[in-house]
Amino acid sequence: MEKVEDQNPQQEEDQVVNPWEVSAKDGGKIDYDKLIDKFGCQRLDQSFVDRVQRLTSRPPHVFLRRGVFFAHRDFNDILDAYERGQKFYLYTGRGPSSEALHLGHLIPFMFTKYLQDAFKVPLVIQLTDDEKCMWKNLSVEESQRLARENAKDIIACGFDISKTFIFSDFDYVGGAFYKNMVKVAKCVTYNKVVGIFGFTGEDHIGKVSFPPVQAVPSFPSSFPHLFSGKDDLRCLIPCAIDQDPYFRMTRDVAPRIGYHKPALIESLFFPALQGETGKMSASDPNSAIYVTDSAKDIKYKVNKHAFTGGQETIEKHRQYGANLEVDIPIKYLNFFLEDDVELEHIKKAYGAGRMLTGEVKKRLIEVLTEIVERHRRARAAVTDEMVDAFMAVRPLPNMFD
Amino acid sequence: MEKVEDQNPQQEEDQVVNPWEVSAKDGGKIDYDKLIDKFGCQRLDQSFVDRVQRLTSRPPHVFLRRGVFFAHRDFNDILDAYERGQKFYLYTGRGPSSEALHLGHLIPFMFTKYLQDAFKVPLVIQLTDDEKCMWKNLSVEESQRLARENAKDIIACGFDISKTFIFSDFDYVGGAFYKNMVKVAKCVTYNKVVGIFGFTGEDHIGKVSFPPVQAVPSFPSSFPHLFSGKDDLRCLIPCAIDQDPYFRMTRDVAPRIGYHKPALIESLFFPALQGETGKMSASDPNSAIYVTDSAKDIKYKVNKHAFTGGQETIEKHRQYGANLEVDIPIKYLNFFLEDDVELEHIKKAYGAGRMLTGEVKKRLIEVLTEIVERHRRARAAVTDEMVDAFMAVRPLPNMFD
Repeated sequence: MEKVEDQNPQQEEDQVVNPWEVSAKDGGKIDYDKLIDKFGCQRLDQSFVDRVQRLTSRPPHVFLRRGVFFAHRDFNDILDAYERGQKFYLYTGRGPSSEALHLGHLIPFMFTKYLQDAFKVPLVIQLTDDEKCMWKNLSVEESQRLARENAKDIIACGFDISKTFIFSDFDYVGGAFYKNMVKVAKCVTYNKVVGIFGFTGEDHIGKVSFPPVQAVPSFPSSFPHLFSGKDDLRCLIPCAIDQDPYFRMTRDVAPRIGYHKPALIESLFFPALQGETGKMSASDPNSAIYVTDSAKDIKYKVNKHAFTGGQETIEKHRQYGANLEVDIPIKYLNFFLEDDVELEHIKKAYGAGRMLTGEVKKRLIEVLTEIVERHRRARAAVTDEMVDAFMAVRPLPNMFD
Repeated sequence: MEKVEDQNPQQEEDQVVNPWEVSAKDGGKIDYDKLIDKFGCQRLDQSFVDRVQRLTSRPPHVFLRRGVFFAHRDFNDILDAYERGQKFYLYTGRGPSSEALHLGHLIPFMFTKYLQDAFKVPLVIQLTDDEKCMWKNLSVEESQRLARENAKDIIACGFDISKTFIFSDFDYVGGAFYKNMVKVAKCVTYNKVVGIFGFTGEDHIGKVSFPPVQAVPSFPSSFPHLFSGKDDLRCLIPCAIDQDPYFRMTRDVAPRIGYHKPALIESLFFPALQGETGKMSASDPNSAIYVTDSAKDIKYKVNKHAFTGGQETIEKHRQYGANLEVDIPIKYLNFFLEDDVELEHIKKAYGAGRMLTGEVKKRLIEVLTEIVERHRRARAAVTDEMVDAFMAVRPLPNMFD
């Protein structure tokens, strides 16, 4: 039986992780082992990495082989079915609350792009403009504008238009999708969502109404233009682990309304430049590298704000080496430096004091600048017509090719 | 300032009137004066009846001149605007929970048909199949089937297809309608809906999510195919007074999101055959006359089940006369016998004991049989193509003619 532990804020004595708040105990680090235990998901161990490599005949993505995607629910069922020749579809999304995305926002999309290519499967991407309209008190129009802007960044990640449907809730809610929202809502009590999401009586009912909206893209029948007659198709959701509460609820409801539980593959949080104490803060632009940052911005932010494990003086550093456990440049390189050999070399040399913090930061600046420049070029090539094309409600006849 | 009193079931010591429960204190009669006071609506007095007659140049409907529609909110604003040459639109609806409607269900539709004809205004009719799916635990498909069946009964009331849009929530929720749902939901806290509707923590979130669905047809922007560019159009809602809580909430929210408050014109409950203690019970077919009842059924039900104010013996009856205050045949005739002179004559003669209960019942049976037969013929003429035509999302170019 699946463990579904409710979060009661009153009883919460240490870290808080939900879709709106990520904070570690006493300003420390997020304890992911505890999180796995509390949420009741599974660790994604090396056997999965090997199996994915074998099934897809390509090297596993750096986020997979370095444990960025570290937890899962029923990913084994997806792989079992795939091995029997049954395809699945991918579902991920974004709440469009800001103009510019930071690198942490790109992680699920980069990984989803890899999964789409490796497994050759269709993908639906939900832009929850309704959620942001309600939580951030944006106007409907502003939420929709941000959704389209964010869609450009998502498209710039390289998704295959013949396999990808991007939709905004304000555009797409209705019909089969709304019917599934009602079916889900019927199965979840108010007390239950309070347990899962920590809502209070003073929260508006838009918040209480929203979880079914994020739940139902997990069910193929919500997309009749894509999956008509394929009600048995399984769904795999790549996301950061803070989204787990939505899908715990979804998995609880699914069998009661005749659907498969969606499977999940869940990532760590991308740490702030100032250190690994949670997610980045939207209110502090110096806490993250944005896809709109210039090379100069990146250099400044890394040199000025990146928290490091280097020693106070060169002499001490040569003697003791850097503390890699807390070092942000090393953590960022772990996400984005694809060359395993070079990363291993840097970690050894830096940890032993042979490499200085400035040298590691210099390499990180190169790596990040290249990623951001590549993204900027790709995004500049995304036209409004392409956004319309990705967001058009249309069949995808070649989505499993 | 508008009085918006919340209903707290714990503090409720007498009658309960909300969209799901109507019960008088200690099995007595509903106290409508108290209800008006509690809800904060206004009494619809004779000056309104006279004014409607003057403005529309036609005799006021029997439901208006006999006080069946007895309460209102801002109906004067509608009439003021109408007098200045500004039209409005009508909004009413039905929760399609049963195959066959009874006469009580027809009352708002009969009256709305009169208003449409008299004021020459467009009308939207909401079939809340989503609500019934959630409250009555019907399947989506069954709720939709009932919505279409009920649409036939509604169409049989004679609405003008060039001025009428009927929609089911499962078909129509989405787009501009959904955007308004989100705007409303943002403005209403959970505590507020608990106060208005009496939900508990064990109620499912579908119930908590529903009030905005019934609220937003009050706003013209929810129907861009009808009212595009007419955001200032006022809305008048004819309904039974048990629906008032939805529209108290709607009126509270409307100015905060830039819309007019909808106006209301509200009816008494149609009493059960067994006596005036509330609404009719769907679980007891003998408590109401259904539009599917045969002449024989009607005769049986009236003769067998109608509670009367006649005396035990003919002798006593001749001596004391009937108690008209509790007499159901008289109450039913008050709704449905259009001839004021004949009704007055019956009431006098029956009250004085000159007319016997059997004679009054005989006249009622004739009146009801004629109404039901007329409805049956009209309904039989409603084809599936007509239902499709009324429910098609389309502009109504002649809706104000």
